[in-house]
Amino acid sequence: MDYRARQAAARQRLEGAGVEALVVAHLPNIRYLTGFSGSNALLLLEAAGAWLYTDGRYREQAKQEVREAKVEIPPKGDLWKAAAQRARRRRRVGMEAEHVTLAQSARWRENWAGNGKNLMPLRGEIEALRAVKEREEITAIQRAVELASSGFAKLTAKLRPGMKETAAAGWLEYQLRLAGAEGLAFETILAGGAHGALVHAHPGGERLPERGFVVVDYGVRLGGYCSDMTRTLHLGEPSRKARAVYAAVLEAQQAAMAAVKPGVACAAVDRAARRVIAKAGWGGYFPHSTGHGVGLEIHEAPRLGAASKERLAAGQVITIEPGVYIPGWGGVRIEDVVVVTERGAEGLTPTPKQLLQL
Amino acid sequence: MDYRARQAAARQRLEGAGVEALVVAHLPNIRYLTGFSGSNALLLLEAAGAWLYTDGRYREQAKQEVREAKVEIPPKGDLWKAAAQRARRRRRVGMEAEHVTLAQSARWRENWAGNGKNLMPLRGEIEALRAVKEREEITAIQRAVELASSGFAKLTAKLRPGMKETAAAGWLEYQLRLAGAEGLAFETILAGGAHGALVHAHPGGERLPERGFVVVDYGVRLGGYCSDMTRTLHLGEPSRKARAVYAAVLEAQQAAMAAVKPGVACAAVDRAARRVIAKAGWGGYFPHSTGHGVGLEIHEAPRLGAASKERLAAGQVITIEPGVYIPGWGGVRIEDVVVVTERGAEGLTPTPKQLLQL
Repeated sequence: MDYRARQAAARQRLEGAGVEALVVAHLPNIRYLTGFSGSNALLLLEAAGAWLYTDGRYREQAKQEVREAKVEIPPKGDLWKAAAQRARRRRRVGMEAEHVTLAQSARWRENWAGNGKNLMPLRGEIEALRAVKEREEITAIQRAVELASSGFAKLTAKLRPGMKETAAAGWLEYQLRLAGAEGLAFETILAGGAHGALVHAHPGGERLPERGFVVVDYGVRLGGYCSDMTRTLHLGEPSRKARAVYAAVLEAQQAAMAAVKPGVACAAVDRAARRVIAKAGWGGYFPHSTGHGVGLEIHEAPRLGAASKERLAAGQVITIEPGVYIPGWGGVRIEDVVVVTERGAEGLTPTPKQLLQL
Repeated sequence: MDYRARQAAARQRLEGAGVEALVVAHLPNIRYLTGFSGSNALLLLEAAGAWLYTDGRYREQAKQEVREAKVEIPPKGDLWKAAAQRARRRRRVGMEAEHVTLAQSARWRENWAGNGKNLMPLRGEIEALRAVKEREEITAIQRAVELASSGFAKLTAKLRPGMKETAAAGWLEYQLRLAGAEGLAFETILAGGAHGALVHAHPGGERLPERGFVVVDYGVRLGGYCSDMTRTLHLGEPSRKARAVYAAVLEAQQAAMAAVKPGVACAAVDRAARRVIAKAGWGGYFPHSTGHGVGLEIHEAPRLGAASKERLAAGQVITIEPGVYIPGWGGVRIEDVVVVTERGAEGLTPTPKQLLQL
């Protein structure tokens, strides 16, 4: 990863925003700019250099990981004071408004503020850089996606009616670990029958039904990058209604994938999925957006929802994941990871999407 | 869980802070006050009632979970606008300064601010309530701790030199899932040999050494509550140095546990551990604090570090986890969960602490 080039691009954005420095508080942004993967850090990015503040737990790790920034471990773990003091001669400083808390910015001001100084709330500066992936990043995401997909076959070989959801999720996660996953990208969703009607149902004491859908939504981290996939399988013989719902979601997913192209409005991709589901009669049962960017974070720019103002760009990596959820009955969601290419979309998720009956 | 009593206690604190309402943005605080466990919510707590804002994904889940609050799903997912509008007649509103971002508070102000209105940054109001656990909460934590402990024996039965760290961590996590864990409380740390010298090393492609320490730090969630434990085992015959380091850490851990009592300064518990490690000659190799509260969150009040200003109180549940980390060689950490009782400390973690050689 070329941290120097990334920081150069970030500095250009600082210039555009009219600030002398940016306080980067969001850990994935810090990782993107310096390589540091610890859980506590603050980065001060200036034209002349970059300073990374962390605590004593990460002294060794910072030495090994951090590129293109000086590492400092301030006394008493007061990262905000240390960074503010370092920047005391700067008069216009940008701060990540979506990630800095009121308490943190107050601490900064106590150690920095003065006459004629300006703290500028900025939004999405580093996220905008991160939205378009480098080739090396796409390769990393693809590896994560393929590792995750390999686990799905191992899950379906084991799934049985009556199994506890937690046991099924655990088996899947173990297979992912054996395949080399560094960790999970988010908490696995594995929910059968009516439980699957909760969009973000986490596995609980519930047992899988004799007959009904099972939604499985999971991801891994590998090389720091996330995968994200959902498949919905059916235990027992699907009813006519089950087949109809599944077919509608699959068609919606394919319609949205077909709509992906550089320059297309993210909202248009969302509409492409929503139109199919509405036409099939389930318009009121698709309560989330169609997708989101994926990378160092499981949810990142761009968003693909009805209210999205963004347009797709080549090099973005996004999910396409429409769903239908019927309270008391069950849910269906199908999700792939897709690269936006010059000519359209390249799906990265190799797992088949036809209705799988176990 | 008595949400009504919790909200009553929270309202008393609001009165004490001189505000008419509190904007609760921190999800564990929202869960504590209403039972809602979704990943997106905002709670407006007033003397006359409570309103919980979330998005369409959680419509069903909110219906099932939320107690003592009205649920609203605002258009376009704009929780901050909706809550601000609801509170428009309030003139003094508290906001969780440690959890609200600059962007969120700006959104609030756009929809709320006016002449003579005051937004008061508050800190730790709900966290202070949460620090002292109800009996039912201690039982929930104990169940989580016992479930997690049961996995450790299954891990040690499987661990071998040369195993990949990710595979070992995956096996452990699978056993935890089989035992019924809802999820992990944090990313498992499992690091052998020199890798264990990184305090927060996550399992990577590394293989476990033929001879050396393996640090295993993990936790589960059960009933929403977290466990947290660390054990360090040794592969092969421990050297004299290994035995000495282990003995120092164990003695430090026991000294800190013996120091736990209501009214004792948290910093004094930290000192009790640190003194033993310094005396053994490893004073420079213990770069983190001795412990932290545990509950709905894996890290919560109180903190047990050198700079802590808090004092222990009966009903708190904390970790005691000193460690020694020698760069290029390895690390040792031993961690139990402990309830502060009227008479001292009650350890909840049943797993033995003597040096285990595999």
